[in-house]
Amino acid sequence: MPTYKAPITEFKFLMQCFGYDDSTYDSDTALSIMNTVDQLTQQVIFPTNQIGDDNHPSYDSQNKTVTLPKEISQAYNTLINQGIVSLGHPSEYGGGNAPQALLGFVAEILLSGNSSLSMCHGLTSSAILCLHHCASEPIKSLYLNHLVSGKYSGTMCLTEPQCGTDLGLIKTKASPHQEHYLIHGQKIWITFGEHNLTENIIHLVLARLPDAPDGIKGISLFLVPKFLDDGTRNAIYCSGLEKKMGIHSSPTCSMSLDGAHGWLIGEPNKGLRAMFVMMNDARIYVGIQSLALAEVSYQTAIEFAKQRRQSRSTNIKRQELNEPADNILVHPDVRRQLLSCKSTNESMRALVFMTQKMIDNHEHERVSFLTPIIKSYITERSNRNISSALQSMGGSGYVKDWLIEQYYRDARITMIYEGTNTIQALDLVGRKLPKDGGKTYRDIIGMLREESETLPEQYKRCLIESVDKLDQATQWLMSNALQDAEQGVAVASPYLNAFALTLLCYCWGKMVKTAGEGSTKDKTGLYFIEHELIEIDVHLATIKKGKTYIMSHGRNEW
Amino acid sequence: MPTYKAPITEFKFLMQCFGYDDSTYDSDTALSIMNTVDQLTQQVIFPTNQIGDDNHPSYDSQNKTVTLPKEISQAYNTLINQGIVSLGHPSEYGGGNAPQALLGFVAEILLSGNSSLSMCHGLTSSAILCLHHCASEPIKSLYLNHLVSGKYSGTMCLTEPQCGTDLGLIKTKASPHQEHYLIHGQKIWITFGEHNLTENIIHLVLARLPDAPDGIKGISLFLVPKFLDDGTRNAIYCSGLEKKMGIHSSPTCSMSLDGAHGWLIGEPNKGLRAMFVMMNDARIYVGIQSLALAEVSYQTAIEFAKQRRQSRSTNIKRQELNEPADNILVHPDVRRQLLSCKSTNESMRALVFMTQKMIDNHEHERVSFLTPIIKSYITERSNRNISSALQSMGGSGYVKDWLIEQYYRDARITMIYEGTNTIQALDLVGRKLPKDGGKTYRDIIGMLREESETLPEQYKRCLIESVDKLDQATQWLMSNALQDAEQGVAVASPYLNAFALTLLCYCWGKMVKTAGEGSTKDKTGLYFIEHELIEIDVHLATIKKGKTYIMSHGRNEW
Repeated sequence: MPTYKAPITEFKFLMQCFGYDDSTYDSDTALSIMNTVDQLTQQVIFPTNQIGDDNHPSYDSQNKTVTLPKEISQAYNTLINQGIVSLGHPSEYGGGNAPQALLGFVAEILLSGNSSLSMCHGLTSSAILCLHHCASEPIKSLYLNHLVSGKYSGTMCLTEPQCGTDLGLIKTKASPHQEHYLIHGQKIWITFGEHNLTENIIHLVLARLPDAPDGIKGISLFLVPKFLDDGTRNAIYCSGLEKKMGIHSSPTCSMSLDGAHGWLIGEPNKGLRAMFVMMNDARIYVGIQSLALAEVSYQTAIEFAKQRRQSRSTNIKRQELNEPADNILVHPDVRRQLLSCKSTNESMRALVFMTQKMIDNHEHERVSFLTPIIKSYITERSNRNISSALQSMGGSGYVKDWLIEQYYRDARITMIYEGTNTIQALDLVGRKLPKDGGKTYRDIIGMLREESETLPEQYKRCLIESVDKLDQATQWLMSNALQDAEQGVAVASPYLNAFALTLLCYCWGKMVKTAGEGSTKDKTGLYFIEHELIEIDVHLATIKKGKTYIMSHGRNEW
Repeated sequence: MPTYKAPITEFKFLMQCFGYDDSTYDSDTALSIMNTVDQLTQQVIFPTNQIGDDNHPSYDSQNKTVTLPKEISQAYNTLINQGIVSLGHPSEYGGGNAPQALLGFVAEILLSGNSSLSMCHGLTSSAILCLHHCASEPIKSLYLNHLVSGKYSGTMCLTEPQCGTDLGLIKTKASPHQEHYLIHGQKIWITFGEHNLTENIIHLVLARLPDAPDGIKGISLFLVPKFLDDGTRNAIYCSGLEKKMGIHSSPTCSMSLDGAHGWLIGEPNKGLRAMFVMMNDARIYVGIQSLALAEVSYQTAIEFAKQRRQSRSTNIKRQELNEPADNILVHPDVRRQLLSCKSTNESMRALVFMTQKMIDNHEHERVSFLTPIIKSYITERSNRNISSALQSMGGSGYVKDWLIEQYYRDARITMIYEGTNTIQALDLVGRKLPKDGGKTYRDIIGMLREESETLPEQYKRCLIESVDKLDQATQWLMSNALQDAEQGVAVASPYLNAFALTLLCYCWGKMVKTAGEGSTKDKTGLYFIEHELIEIDVHLATIKKGKTYIMSHGRNEW
């Protein structure tokens, strides 16, 4: 049975590299929390991972209930009893007020342990944030304590059969009724929409008020609890479960609202704005989710590699002739596969840490700019890394014994949910980049240029080169997309990827600055620069080609 | 329920582009066979695909038998009753003697229909080839008729727990006994090692004779039938089934040989040579398998895209304001995802067709050179394409309804089995490239340069550029790997990929030459050149870096 151990030394190292605000939890306390979470994950969470994969939630169509395996319930209960899920939330509702920099790491550990179970408290966390920012006081005092403790869970109900990406097509209706609203409609793909882990489920539902304008400007947000205040069952029911490739501990529900009682959150017709408080938090969480799976996959591949011997090194110095064959870590192509994981996993974690610290510092504009990059690049790259780690194990990667095939399946959803990666790229290029005349872009690029001066020579040079290339791409975007928006849309994904690679180069520079030249970090960082960063040139070449070859096919040529 | 239709017009088109040898089957007969196989696949094979995925083969540990769902048996029986599995085999054993150019396409259709079931007759086919080339007449007359008809199936038994890639570590022993041998050992990961589809199973088993030299020079090949000539059960038993990510219609067996009777095939200690007749055939088949899954995934994504409407085009000319949203095919990023599939799938099929024609023309050296490229590049790229197709469908790609999540799981094994893709790259760089002083390399490069003159201008230019770059990379390899073999091993994978991209560029040139400039093919081909071929620069840059950054980590730095 493969194992998992939280990369706590990595976290300590990142605290050194990027600093850590110890005003609420000093670094010793932070480390002791991480050690607790690591123990808990190893003993209670990780062992449920394959159980949850093999034993899908069961749906009772009579009572419209969803039941998870008892091991999953027990693991969830341990999490709430130990106060882990409350750690990050405001102390006024019983939370621990921990900084994001610590929470991101706690999230990574739990997501490595059981990625799909962790979606329950992960989404609840985002719901708490949304209610804390947008809900009225009576609503807050009714629900926030129980959400923070984990006694209740939260969901986000956006998608309907006719609309996923395009929320403007939402049909669910809310009609005023006494002090609240009655809601009718169908929602699909609702993560933890129904389950038996908590006493109540608090749904945040997008719907239209009567006479609301068409499209996204006519959408409002409602709180719809499974059980009302007085304990009566509200008319929101699970009508079925999706059968999926993975994340089997996470029930994906179709929900039917048949006059369910709902309460407006935030202003009428401004529902998307409120929902995006929740969504942006969830987007970073999904980035961490994929990274967590890439990390545990890498650990698994290394554990396998250390015990596996096949063939001889072509380099006499690496041969161990007293053994029947050499350890597979001597083989360059195995190393290439593993270094492609290691060099990106470590820098993606640094990027997440840096962004979480920006949340702690209230640098909202920077966070908002980096969020789509984290969601899209990290999920795409993590999927690639899991595939490389699996590949390095040969047939052992494809069978269930080493669990990595489960990580491969579980991770695939991260490129899709909470807004597909295409949507992230459009968010970056269409909203975040042009906002305030490119102010945040200039701020981030300025920071990279300024800090590049302090980095070890090779990283400095590569970072400046990358930033220069990114500036050229941005120039291309400004001059072309302004005249023809379709040009901007066509190059959004490669632009996002080029930006991400530049940021990872910066993160490597910061890490090697602390670790020192010639250190293991430096070796891994140089691998990144020489073997991974070069992909930036493909992205930039692609951008300069614009939409021409993408849009040339006519309607009947498919 | 999504559908599949064999791309027969593509095949007709490839016959036009590359020519077709109609000496045994004229092109009308070939087309009529393909239509039959298409009908059969749509009606009988494709409907078993999800059934086989949901209902894993069952293992009876008492009787050591493996039973597949009855729908799978019925589908297999239809295939043999219609003579489809016999089509390619020598007429002296009841086969149809069809050319490879036709067979490759028939294989693609069946593999799109049910990829894992098709491994049964696919591997049998490779076993027939091996026996036809290497077995004695008595063995041939005992088994070949029944293998050709599909009444018997064949397996290849190579892997043991301690050796996958490194066959030199094989421990299974063969001791002389009367006219034959008694074989003792354990084999794992044996595809269709045990099942209830055929009356007998003919295993081709690698084992060591007494006093055989160590390593791969001491391995012999034996035929070990499940039932002996006189009907008695031979002592080769299935001891368990693997639990896998996909290919659930294909039972993966552990086999235990407890003094099983075996007959030597080919010369003693030259077993790998005989097995490689089988293996090379199977490697091309696995390339086709992954392409087949990429094709049916693309078809599924297009079927989905044509009915799905989300959001508005940013280009007014593409908007359909009488509809609530525009068809997703107007969105550049969806097109990019689908064109990345279309432009590589079509040219990979051309590469397979071209190679199959070389088999028909007995151009063995060229085929042997191209085999690792087909196995490695096509399987890797097909997996990427299936992921892109899945991505274009959003959440619908992740749930079971559209089957594409199954293709994603089923295809993942193709990068691993029949020699991992690393092994393919080492085969290309270590054996095929240096053979006879680089003769086949120069032959293929010469052909590309010569034919480039006949291609449409843009393709000609790109092909010459790519061939020049490839020549530089080969130069680099020759000057570096000769002094330090580890340099060659370190760059083998990017070298193989650069070679593959050059070949696909050639295939596009050939296709556009036939289809004409401005045609749909030309539009797709230009997309390939402008958006896909550029990856060659990353491969070449990687090659020039050699092993430096790959081998810098010490033993304790993992």
